[in-house]
Amino acid sequence: MTNHPQKVLIVGGVAGGASAAARLRRLDEQAHIVLFERGPYISFANCGLPYHISETIQDRGKLLVQTPEAMTQRFNLDIRIESEVVAIDPERKMVTVNSRERGQYEESYDQLLLSPGAKPIRPALPGMDHERVFTLRSIPDMDRIKEQIQAHRPQHATIIGGGFIGVEMAENLREIGLDVALIEAGPHILAPFDADVSVWIEHELQQKGVHLLAEHRLTAIAEQADKLQLSFEHPNQPLETDFVILAIGVQPDTAFLADSGIERTDRGHIIVDEQCRTNVADIYAVGDAIQVADKVNGHATAVPLAGPANKQGRIAADQIAGLSTTYTGTQGTAIIKVFDLTAACTGMNEKALKQQNIPYQKVIVHPLSHAGYYPGASAMTLKILFDEQGKLLGGQAVGKDGVDKRIDVLATAIHFKGSINDLTELELSYAPPYSSAKDPVNMAGYAAENIRTGKTRVFAVEDLSTRDEQSVLLDVRTKKEFEQGHIPGSVHIPVDELRDRINELPTETEIWVYCQVGIRGYTASRILEQHGYETRNLTGGYKSYAAMNR
Amino acid sequence: MTNHPQKVLIVGGVAGGASAAARLRRLDEQAHIVLFERGPYISFANCGLPYHISETIQDRGKLLVQTPEAMTQRFNLDIRIESEVVAIDPERKMVTVNSRERGQYEESYDQLLLSPGAKPIRPALPGMDHERVFTLRSIPDMDRIKEQIQAHRPQHATIIGGGFIGVEMAENLREIGLDVALIEAGPHILAPFDADVSVWIEHELQQKGVHLLAEHRLTAIAEQADKLQLSFEHPNQPLETDFVILAIGVQPDTAFLADSGIERTDRGHIIVDEQCRTNVADIYAVGDAIQVADKVNGHATAVPLAGPANKQGRIAADQIAGLSTTYTGTQGTAIIKVFDLTAACTGMNEKALKQQNIPYQKVIVHPLSHAGYYPGASAMTLKILFDEQGKLLGGQAVGKDGVDKRIDVLATAIHFKGSINDLTELELSYAPPYSSAKDPVNMAGYAAENIRTGKTRVFAVEDLSTRDEQSVLLDVRTKKEFEQGHIPGSVHIPVDELRDRINELPTETEIWVYCQVGIRGYTASRILEQHGYETRNLTGGYKSYAAMNR
Ligand SMILES: Cc1cc2nc3c(=O)[nH]c(=O)nc-3n(C[C@H](O)[C@H](O)[C@H](O)COP(=O)(O)OP(=O)(O)OC[C@H]3O[C@@H](n4cnc5c(N)ncnc54)[C@H](O)[C@@H]3O)c2cc1C
Ligand SMILES: Cc1cc2nc3c(=O)[nH]c(=O)nc-3n(C[C@H](O)[C@H](O)[C@H](O)COP(=O)(O)OP(=O)(O)OC[C@H]3O[C@@H](n4cnc5c(N)ncnc54)[C@H](O)[C@@H]3O)c2cc1C
Ligand SMILES: CC(C)(COP(=O)(O)OP(=O)(O)OC[C@H]1O[C@@H](n2cnc3c(N)ncnc32)[C@H](O)[C@@H]1OP(=O)(O)O)[C@@H](O)C(=O)NCCC(=O)NCCS
Ligand SMILES: CC(C)(COP(=O)(O)OP(=O)(O)OC[C@H]1O[C@@H](n2cnc3c(N)ncnc32)[C@H](O)[C@@H]1OP(=O)(O)O)[C@@H](O)C(=O)NCCC(=O)NCCS
Repeated sequence: MTNHPQKVLIVGGVAGGASAAARLRRLDEQAHIVLFERGPYISFANCGLPYHISETIQDRGKLLVQTPEAMTQRFNLDIRIESEVVAIDPERKMVTVNSRERGQYEESYDQLLLSPGAKPIRPALPGMDHERVFTLRSIPDMDRIKEQIQAHRPQHATIIGGGFIGVEMAENLREIGLDVALIEAGPHILAPFDADVSVWIEHELQQKGVHLLAEHRLTAIAEQADKLQLSFEHPNQPLETDFVILAIGVQPDTAFLADSGIERTDRGHIIVDEQCRTNVADIYAVGDAIQVADKVNGHATAVPLAGPANKQGRIAADQIAGLSTTYTGTQGTAIIKVFDLTAACTGMNEKALKQQNIPYQKVIVHPLSHAGYYPGASAMTLKILFDEQGKLLGGQAVGKDGVDKRIDVLATAIHFKGSINDLTELELSYAPPYSSAKDPVNMAGYAAENIRTGKTRVFAVEDLSTRDEQSVLLDVRTKKEFEQGHIPGSVHIPVDELRDRINELPTETEIWVYCQVGIRGYTASRILEQHGYETRNLTGGYKSYAAMNR
Repeated sequence: MTNHPQKVLIVGGVAGGASAAARLRRLDEQAHIVLFERGPYISFANCGLPYHISETIQDRGKLLVQTPEAMTQRFNLDIRIESEVVAIDPERKMVTVNSRERGQYEESYDQLLLSPGAKPIRPALPGMDHERVFTLRSIPDMDRIKEQIQAHRPQHATIIGGGFIGVEMAENLREIGLDVALIEAGPHILAPFDADVSVWIEHELQQKGVHLLAEHRLTAIAEQADKLQLSFEHPNQPLETDFVILAIGVQPDTAFLADSGIERTDRGHIIVDEQCRTNVADIYAVGDAIQVADKVNGHATAVPLAGPANKQGRIAADQIAGLSTTYTGTQGTAIIKVFDLTAACTGMNEKALKQQNIPYQKVIVHPLSHAGYYPGASAMTLKILFDEQGKLLGGQAVGKDGVDKRIDVLATAIHFKGSINDLTELELSYAPPYSSAKDPVNMAGYAAENIRTGKTRVFAVEDLSTRDEQSVLLDVRTKKEFEQGHIPGSVHIPVDELRDRINELPTETEIWVYCQVGIRGYTASRILEQHGYETRNLTGGYKSYAAMNR
């Protein structure tokens, strides 16, 4: 800490900015800390906005985690709302502020911290600026959407973009009884997940009445007889709706840095080091506006999430106060509630691994959230990705219960650069209402280890198309299960009859085994292997197959 | 794997034994595997027994995870129920079996695996063998207790012993409307927890009508006019009850090894190495019957829990099949549901740290299970223990929601020998229904790090008695909070007035600050420290104080 009070300006008064201000004050009672916020509110719960639209969160006031008054009182801050920083002059250590109240003025700094966040992307398409095309980032944004619903009683809403905010909005608008269309340009929603996980979420949305239109690329919005008409590149069937929420992603809100000399990426992310320092002396940056390192592979990335923003805000404050805390990277841990389901992920997904040519293996298990004999257990889908040495690369899960816990355990293991062997060893808490003696995470570890050590080979649903016609596709479930649905071309021998009927199977060709979730198929493959067969077992079983072929 | 089929005998057909049998068969299709089980059932859910007594688990059949028939079919096992192994002759590689059906016979082995488990301790006190003094370990035990309740409609039950099984039985008997007394010899129930956590569980039991009698040491049970009369060493007020559940702990069920040459501890635990090998060639042991290493401090310990038993069973099977899997130790992760609360722990507690003279620090936080603005959030008590270098030693938590998740994250961190600094960095999943941008585990990490790096010093509730009379005890909560209750002898200055009223405080003496949970007290202490005061902040705040002084 310095001897004379330092003057610290903070741009942006929400997740990163407010966290930094609070931490800095706790570290430095003397500093003059000015918090600039363009909007009318500081320190609000962005993440809660969708839930007030459905009145799941009834009290709007609850979204204001801090008010300027309370925060000033507690932390002795100089908070200036409706004050936009429009330029920075690092030479003179000055920022230019456009204040609603005071007009334009300059303010000097010793240290400057930027947490301007990100803003919704608005593509340059016809009709994008129609008054009934909304985006959601701030309290006023939310108020506008609520007002639209309350004043005009629309029946049909269309959400463009199947990312986290789009899906949350689909859920919340559906909860209040609207007809909701969710438009996604890609084949699947929620890009952080791979298809074998996102299909479950898509199914849930559809079950709950959301009209999901994947592979629909918007080209224009036009008003027609009080309705909005949406056109698509392909398919070219237009869609009529009452209002639109545009949620195709965010971009760093850093245009005001154009002439500052602060280095940014092509997409506008501020480039910082592990100390959250920009290339310009005494200027720090955090939050949605910065580029960070991927913890798993070291690549540059950007993860616009509140956890990293809050943590980085605290770290930048530490740096400004002379402490040595660092931010070593993100692993992209994320979670979303979708009606009765929870989906969560951490680390890398298959798409990224393929893109970066990193060899990996995957395993999918469908364990119960807790002991099956105790009421309320429900199955989840848990997928882990690992490399040839067994190092854990990523995890994804979806289910009704216990998904957040398992992803947090995997996130912790990834933080420690853990392996699938570690997953088998983890001693997690077990009593019947909470887990099983072998927790789902242990189970995924076992299944993965059996692959890595060559005890079993697996195939995934998407590998079915590559199967050699000579090979046998063997369903080892019960007769009843088989009759209720199976993969076309399957031969059927229940696992419990396999030892007796093994000579029904040709030895000269590979046997592709499957059961419902993978356990019996694995047991069957072990029996067959030890009788000299070459086998592969369907990871995730018929359950994953059926989910991807609905 | 060997060339000629090996003959493997397994003693005990439940958690460790059945898991080993299944795994071994998957690894070795040829082995002759014999599973001896003394009782009438294999592979049952011991952990579910208390819940069938209350009919929370309605279907008794669900407790039988596997039947001999189904398991034989699937795994080609030679399962022998009602067959007790009474002696082992390692010289001749023979065991002696007392079979209900076949009488006594011998069976030879190539490899022998022992998973005989533990049995309830019955102290040598008058009346212990009364027919209405029950213990709970097996399905028949459970049936007997259920029968007692159904046939005799008792009104009052007494449970001796406030361990996990005792507390679960208290809950389940209370759930079906019985008057329940829970007797504990020590000052607090549930020894794996420290008092500052167990008081919450005790309060919950009392709130739900369980009559908790701590520091009651049983001396005798006598029948009197169809009732049972319990006498205590101190206090000597007797207690009248209809039946008794004895749950004062378990001991390894290893008396049958007396002449086998297999090394055991004084308490009867089988001594094994990391390969689950006993001192006698070709004899392995797992589960409740063995001694294991404590992962945190390396000391010998015994943790009679299902997770370790199942894992060790799988490891011993690997060893028998020639694989090199090892069991490196336990960290004592455990969890219990107590009516609406969950309590869980991992690693070492304060009692053990003190006993072993390991210097440690503790921090208690009371974060919300998820974002406060999203419905359904509830506060938990989360405590972590760490050493001078910041290495995490243990964690304990209690609350309505999200406790299992945080303990599993801490358990994972302890597995990796993580530090409190790791806790601050963990990127855990956040959306409003699941957590906060700074998860409770992050928060505990922050609070701990502030102590370790000297930004704040803390005191615990139990330190209050050591406070120098000269020092000031300062309550920094609001006037209303202060008026509703405070620690005797406190001065009151709300944190938000502290900067203005700081000269009301003497500079020459220590200020012991507290608020409701610790956050405002910490902020206050930072203000004071920077004005030259020496301070300490109450970890856990008035909330912990009140809980321990109810
Ligand atoms: C609807 C919604 C739901 C979300 N849900 C989740 C979730 O469930 N989980 C999760 O982890 N994350 C979620 N997020 C993302 C999370 O809110 C952000 O990652 C986080 O707020 C980023 O923090 P930040 O400080 O970088 O930016 P922000 O919190 O957006 O703060 C930036 C502030 O800076 C102000 N500002 C910008 N430029 C200037 C300027 N030049 N001068 C003055 N002020 C300026 C802006 O007005 C803004 O208020 C959600 C976001 C939204 C919008
Ligand atoms: C009521 C209750 C609730 C529990 N709740 C939990 C919980 O919530 N979480 C948790 O982790 N753990 C819990 N446990 C503990 C858990 O059940 C044990 O840790 C686990 O079962 C130990 O496995 P094991 O194989 O060592 O012994 P067991 O599962 O007890 O199996 C040993 C078997 O060996 C048989 N046997 C013993 N000696 C011989 C012999 N000489 N010959 C033949 N057979 C023999 C016994 O009859 C017994 O069936 C609970 C236990 C009980 C009793
Ligand atoms: C029932 C019992 C015999 C099961 O033993 P098990 O067959 O080893 O256990 P599971 O049925 O859970 O199957 C686990 C196996 O399936 C594999 N598996 C799980 N999901 C899989 C999937 N989707 N794909 C492929 N393999 C999978 C695991 O890798 C593991 O095999 P491995 O040990 O060879 O690696 C044993 O757990 C038992 O007796 N339990 C009841 C007693 C008890 O535990 N009591 C105390 C707690 S109440
Ligand atoms: C409200 C806001 C300003 C709070 O910042 P904050 O004061 O750092 O955070 P908290 O109130 O949670 O307090 C955390 C501090 O209390 C300390 N603490 C927590 N519990 C404690 C306890 N029991 N004892 C002692 N200290 C404790 C922590 O160590 C931390 O202090 P540190 O950073 O100096 O180490 C900021 O989080 C914010 O603006 N949030 C809303 C915006 C947002 O995050 N949006 C996105 C998500 S919706």
